[in-house]
Amino acid sequence: MISKAQIAHIRSLHQKKFRKETQFFIAEGTKSVLELMRSDMEIEAVFATQDWVLRNNPAAFETQVVSEAELSRITSLVTAQDVLALVRIPQYKPDITELQKEWVLCLDGIRDPGNLGTMIRLADWFGIRHILCSEDTAEVWNPKVIQASMGSISRVKTYELNIEEFLPQLNSKIYGSFLEGKSIYETPYPSSGVLVIGNEANGIRPELAGLINEQITIPSYSGTSGAESLNAAIATAIICAEIRRNGN
Amino acid sequence: MISKAQIAHIRSLHQKKFRKETQFFIAEGTKSVLELMRSDMEIEAVFATQDWVLRNNPAAFETQVVSEAELSRITSLVTAQDVLALVRIPQYKPDITELQKEWVLCLDGIRDPGNLGTMIRLADWFGIRHILCSEDTAEVWNPKVIQASMGSISRVKTYELNIEEFLPQLNSKIYGSFLEGKSIYETPYPSSGVLVIGNEANGIRPELAGLINEQITIPSYSGTSGAESLNAAIATAIICAEIRRNGN
Repeated sequence: MISKAQIAHIRSLHQKKFRKETQFFIAEGTKSVLELMRSDMEIEAVFATQDWVLRNNPAAFETQVVSEAELSRITSLVTAQDVLALVRIPQYKPDITELQKEWVLCLDGIRDPGNLGTMIRLADWFGIRHILCSEDTAEVWNPKVIQASMGSISRVKTYELNIEEFLPQLNSKIYGSFLEGKSIYETPYPSSGVLVIGNEANGIRPELAGLINEQITIPSYSGTSGAESLNAAIATAIICAEIRRNGN
Repeated sequence: MISKAQIAHIRSLHQKKFRKETQFFIAEGTKSVLELMRSDMEIEAVFATQDWVLRNNPAAFETQVVSEAELSRITSLVTAQDVLALVRIPQYKPDITELQKEWVLCLDGIRDPGNLGTMIRLADWFGIRHILCSEDTAEVWNPKVIQASMGSISRVKTYELNIEEFLPQLNSKIYGSFLEGKSIYETPYPSSGVLVIGNEANGIRPELAGLINEQITIPSYSGTSGAESLNAAIATAIICAEIRRNGN
């Protein structure tokens, strides 16, 4: 059984306002929850079906057994999963010395939660451990972001900050994805740097463009009448793959 | 003014059943609609606000001026756009001789409409003009697919067919994306071929694996504890970029 107060608390976390107020977020589905359990994140509570508990045996955690009907009352998804966890939002502080040694992703106004979650997942795949998010980027703790990140949220650190103020402190070489720039295949990449990806519709803000050392672009092969752009997460993936292919 | 019958007709097209029955689909938003207008597709009707008509002046098309309130009654989106078009579903027949000369994308059970639309868009960017879709792949004419394809649906031809039966007829070299395979960077690519991408959760069906000549994989850089996989559209993009980078 899950209490009415618990239901109300969890349901409130579907909204950004209450996530901000209470500093909790929810994660749903076996993959996300198990990966969060294995990580350093602080799990406050886990709600799962009896079947799920038997299958996954999360011994170290107190899991509250609930019915599918109860899960469907607390889920943020169209169809409830077998498990939902209540997790404390981690407070990451950027460590400049650490960030200077690595490739860092920097998102300037990514609005779609699915795109953001996909970017966290692909950053994880490419060994990018830190993502700087402008204040107008979608909120990382939105259930749709968590869902799309497929557990990678437990490994990739995100920082919401004023990127115009922060980037100059890093002293790293800054690359930006533009529709007109140097081909990503003709650009040399150092062993650390920052890759800036702009908003889905408008790209990188002009105010940021002055901070960018290399404007890079993914060549198109469609001729003059083809697609005008790529989805932001797709562009990020292709550039990250290219940076890593070059041995960085 | 839009008639009650028209509203009912357009709303019915939010459902696959009625798209199949009537062989119409809907496209929404300036980019999609203008690109469809420029293409060979058969536009049956366009509904737009007065402002949209003044801004875009689609002289060659009879555009029915409607109010925002009327658009919100026919939209398939959460928030209606300024324009909605009713378009006849094209009947493409695969031309084996043509397909043999090019790189062709083949989707085995892609279920998420957003992923499918993103794949059509990136295929267009990479000059891939034909996509073979297994019968259990999401339906291409779903409004969410059209939306995510950002107009590329007007240039990329899709074929719903039994891919196990069809692929052997092509006589092309067949590459499949797997979690364990040869690195995409160590694989030579001919000037034409087929790239098979499997279902988001389960990958390529074992029944298809026997048809695949090269199992390829995108190297991960996350160490042993990182992301286990990439989103299907992301993987497709990275492989298509690599095929094209090699000059094919």
